[in-house]
Amino acid sequence: MSAQGSNGSKPRNAIFIGKKPLMTYVTATLVQLANEPTVVIKARGKSITRAVDVAQIIVKRMDTLGYKIGPVKVGTDIVSSEDGKPRNVSTIEVSISRAK
Amino acid sequence: MSAQGSNGSKPRNAIFIGKKPLMTYVTATLVQLANEPTVVIKARGKSITRAVDVAQIIVKRMDTLGYKIGPVKVGTDIVSSEDGKPRNVSTIEVSISRAK
Repeated sequence: MSAQGSNGSKPRNAIFIGKKPLMTYVTATLVQLANEPTVVIKARGKSITRAVDVAQIIVKRMDTLGYKIGPVKVGTDIVSSEDGKPRNVSTIEVSISRAK
Repeated sequence: MSAQGSNGSKPRNAIFIGKKPLMTYVTATLVQLANEPTVVIKARGKSITRAVDVAQIIVKRMDTLGYKIGPVKVGTDIVSSEDGKPRNVSTIEVSISRAK
């Protein structure tokens, strides 16, 4: 995650939630939070639920680490499906940062 | 909120997302919005994705109606599973209100 390309399309402080085991993303987010003040957990479609789970595990189950949830944004991405038609897919962005 | 039951457990301006077809909740939310300035779409677990979908359909696909997404909150509920152990389940609350 630290070796970002020069095009800036994948900012270092974002974690994209996919199909890996939940704790993979928890660990990745915690590693990022050690280097950045704020990390944004991003997901779309069915992974949205997992993004909320990751944020909750970091804030509630690991509450001794002192992180809090910042703004939560929801939106829509347009992706082209296999038949070539554009489809709307919902997205979420959950900010996590160190509690003051 | 205005005509809330005396126990306060199910305020009128909340829509709880379950397993029904998506457009059922879109319609229910629109009916509520005709009577209340703000409606909160609530979901937990795997329904979280559907809650975001409902909000996005109302705001993007029906943009002529003039609604916007307000604060989004995420949290954790503790529920007892079938084996009697407490389990954490993630929750979301998406506010929808009339755009100024």
